[in-house]
Amino acid sequence: MPRLYDVVAIGNAIVDVIAPASERFLQAEGLAKGAMTLIDESRAHALYARMAPGVEASGGSAANTAAGVASLGGRAAFLGKIADDQLGEVFAHDMRAIGVEFRGGALVGGPSTGRCLANVTPDGERTMCTYLGAAVELGHDDIDSAVVEGGAVLYLEGYLFDPPEARRAFARAAGLARGAGRSIALSLSDAFVVDRHRETLLGFIRGQVDVVFANEAELLSLFRTSDFSVAARSAADLARIVAVTRGENGSVIIADGEQLAVGALAVDRVADTTGAGDQYAAGFLHALANGKSLDVCGRLASLAAAEVISHYGPRPQVCLRELATAQGL
Amino acid sequence: MPRLYDVVAIGNAIVDVIAPASERFLQAEGLAKGAMTLIDESRAHALYARMAPGVEASGGSAANTAAGVASLGGRAAFLGKIADDQLGEVFAHDMRAIGVEFRGGALVGGPSTGRCLANVTPDGERTMCTYLGAAVELGHDDIDSAVVEGGAVLYLEGYLFDPPEARRAFARAAGLARGAGRSIALSLSDAFVVDRHRETLLGFIRGQVDVVFANEAELLSLFRTSDFSVAARSAADLARIVAVTRGENGSVIIADGEQLAVGALAVDRVADTTGAGDQYAAGFLHALANGKSLDVCGRLASLAAAEVISHYGPRPQVCLRELATAQGL
Repeated sequence: MPRLYDVVAIGNAIVDVIAPASERFLQAEGLAKGAMTLIDESRAHALYARMAPGVEASGGSAANTAAGVASLGGRAAFLGKIADDQLGEVFAHDMRAIGVEFRGGALVGGPSTGRCLANVTPDGERTMCTYLGAAVELGHDDIDSAVVEGGAVLYLEGYLFDPPEARRAFARAAGLARGAGRSIALSLSDAFVVDRHRETLLGFIRGQVDVVFANEAELLSLFRTSDFSVAARSAADLARIVAVTRGENGSVIIADGEQLAVGALAVDRVADTTGAGDQYAAGFLHALANGKSLDVCGRLASLAAAEVISHYGPRPQVCLRELATAQGL
Repeated sequence: MPRLYDVVAIGNAIVDVIAPASERFLQAEGLAKGAMTLIDESRAHALYARMAPGVEASGGSAANTAAGVASLGGRAAFLGKIADDQLGEVFAHDMRAIGVEFRGGALVGGPSTGRCLANVTPDGERTMCTYLGAAVELGHDDIDSAVVEGGAVLYLEGYLFDPPEARRAFARAAGLARGAGRSIALSLSDAFVVDRHRETLLGFIRGQVDVVFANEAELLSLFRTSDFSVAARSAADLARIVAVTRGENGSVIIADGEQLAVGALAVDRVADTTGAGDQYAAGFLHALANGKSLDVCGRLASLAAAEVISHYGPRPQVCLRELATAQGL
C-alpha cells in the first residue's frame, strides 16, 4: 500500500461559533469552564440566543489537526460527516482550501451540520457546548479503507467515543490501520469524555494506540489521580509515546521510559485557546510522520499551538510551513 | 413621534466570508482591488471554491454601522432582508446580540442570505464580491414607518441603489423621515456604485440628504474629477455635512463653508479594512445624534474606524462605549 498521506484524521465535522463571554455568563449558564459539553439542538438555540455576536469558523478537533498538518506542508486527509447545508459547505470549503483531502459526503434530510458554541472568556480560555448534528451519523461505512491504509498515521479524536455509531467507525479504522502496519494516534479530547469512557479508552489505547495526546486534566482523569507525577508514571506504560500539554508550562513527552520537557512559545496575548491541543498534535504528528526526533516533534507542536492561540479561531491563519522554516524547524 | 432610536439604518443584509488573498489572486480573478463587485450565485460558488480558508462574520455596510452605534451605547435599528437559512440565523443573531433592533423578517423559498466574499490582501485592503441573495427582496413594504419615524437619523447605504426594489424602499424611507422632521444620512458606499447611479444619487442628495459619507475615490467619482480640492469645493454645496474619509490620512469634514481635518488614530497593524467606513459613520452619527460638535463627531468616528481595522471582520470586537470613555470621548 503506497503512503498517500502523512496523517489521516477521523473526527466530528463541526463549525465553531466563537464569541466573547464573561465569567459571569459561564456561571449563569451553568457551564464548566474549559470543558466541552454535549448539548441538543434546542439547548443550542437557547444558548446561542444569549451569546454575544460571534464569528463562524470551521472547527472539529481532528479536522483542525488535519488542517494544521496541511498548513505545515504535510499531506492530510479527514473523514467526517457534514449536512447538505450552508455550514456544511463552509466546512467542506475550508478543508479543501487548506489542502486537506476531505471525505465523508453531505447528509441529506438529516440533522444539520454540527456546531460548537465556543464562549471565550477574557483570559482566552474557551468553554465549548457542542451540538453534534450530522456528525453523529458518521458510521462504519464512511471509513474509506484506501484512505485509512494510505496514511502513515491514523489520528482519532476521543470525542468520537460519544456518538455510538462513531465508535464502530473508530474500531473499523483502527483495524484497517493496524492491518496496514500504520501507527495510530489518539487525542483524549476532554476530561469529561475521559470520565465517561475511561475503561473503553484504556482498553483501546493499551491494545492499539501508539501515540496519545492529552492535556493535564485529561491525563489526571484517565488515571483518577490529582497528582501529575503519579499520572506521568502511569503514562509510561500506556503507549509508546504520550504527549501531555500543560498550557503556558509547555508539554511533557513521555517515551522510552523518559520524560522530555518542551517549553511553550511565548505569545503577546492569548486571544483564544480554541484549537491549541489540536495544533499541538498537528505539529507533533507532522514531524513524527517525517521521521523527526521527539525533541523536534515537541518544538514543532509548540510552534503550531502558539500560532493558533494568538487569534480567534481553531486553525492556523498563516502558513505554518513558512513560520516553521523561519524558526529553523 | 417619540424618539426611539439614535440611528435607523437600512441596507443589504449580508454575511461576510473573509479570507486572506494575494495580489496575484486578485489579478487572476480579474477583481478591482478595494472595490465591491456584484456577482451572481454561480460566480459566487466558483470564486469561493478558489478562495483560501475563511471565517464568516455578519456584515452589510449599514448593518455594520447600526452595530457600531449599538456598541457605542446608542439605540439603533436596522431594516434589511435575510433568508430563512443558517447564515440568515447568524445575521439575525449578531444584530440582536449587539443590541440592534432588527426588522425585516426571513424570506422563505427565495434566494439564500446574501454573502460578501471579501479577499484581504497582506496590506489589509479588502476586495469584495457580493452576491445579494435575499437582500434584493427588500422592498417598499419592508419599511416600517414607526421605526423610520422614530429615529433621530435615518442612515442609508449607497449600495441600495443597485437592487431596483430597494430603491423604492429607500425613497419611501426618506419620505417618512423627512415628514417626521428627521435627518437623513447617506454613505456613497463604492466608487463604482457612484459611477452607476451618479445623477440619481446627486438628485437624491441635493433634495433630501443632510449628511453624506464618502471616501476620497467615491467623492472624486461623484464629481468626475481627479482633483481632491475641486471635489471638496463641490462638496460644500452638496449637503449640510459631507464627511470624507482618507484612510491613514484621516478625514475631512466639510460643513458651514469650512473644512475640518480630523486625524486617523494609529493602529499597530492594519489587519483588514473591511468595515472602516461603516464604523466611521457609526461614531460620527452616534455623536451627531447626541448633539456633539463636528470635532467630537470626527474623533469618535476615527476611534471606531481604528478599532475595526485592527482585526478581521467588519464590526467592533470590543465595547466601543468603554473604548471611547477610556479615550475621554
